[in-house]
Amino acid sequence: MEPQELVQRLHDRAVFRADTMAKVDCFRSEHLLVGLNCFEPGQSQAVHAHAGADKFYVVLSGKANFVVGERTFAAGPGDLILAPAGVPHGVTHAETRTVVLVAIAPAP
Amino acid sequence: MEPQELVQRLHDRAVFRADTMAKVDCFRSEHLLVGLNCFEPGQSQAVHAHAGADKFYVVLSGKANFVVGERTFAAGPGDLILAPAGVPHGVTHAETRTVVLVAIAPAP
Repeated sequence: MEPQELVQRLHDRAVFRADTMAKVDCFRSEHLLVGLNCFEPGQSQAVHAHAGADKFYVVLSGKANFVVGERTFAAGPGDLILAPAGVPHGVTHAETRTVVLVAIAPAP
Repeated sequence: MEPQELVQRLHDRAVFRADTMAKVDCFRSEHLLVGLNCFEPGQSQAVHAHAGADKFYVVLSGKANFVVGERTFAAGPGDLILAPAGVPHGVTHAETRTVVLVAIAPAP
């Protein structure tokens, strides 16, 4: 499926890697990046921040532990996690296989 | 819950109206609007387009019939529907109670 396909079944687009969390681009423009972050159990994403860009995650499936700013918490399907510009965020570890929608505006 | 709360359980934020589809703002900045569009069965969103802003929907729950460009299709949980700047899009009708995540960049 082409990355810019206008209708995408996200669960079919998830990919997993044994060595590290995997990223999938679903859409990219000047204004917006939409993708997936896919975690096997125990995988993580280092805490980082985006200067000048607002980001959010929505957990689509699974369960993972997130950091945003000073907060650490477990999140599951239907949870929205917001990381406005400059706010540190990451995933300390996934408890199960986890698929997370990610969007960043403007695109990095 | 404040609209800019950094962690939000989206299913708890959905609201429904008897007379029309309902919109909920979850986050708004210069770069990005994130919200919910909530439909009772039979409700719709008129086809429209955003000049200079890219939009996407992700169906969180339910089932609804979307239009994007020339395409009309049914979408359910985990489906991503992209409406790049200028592309007409809307919801012809929801088949069940349906909650859709919506993001627009930059924010309208």
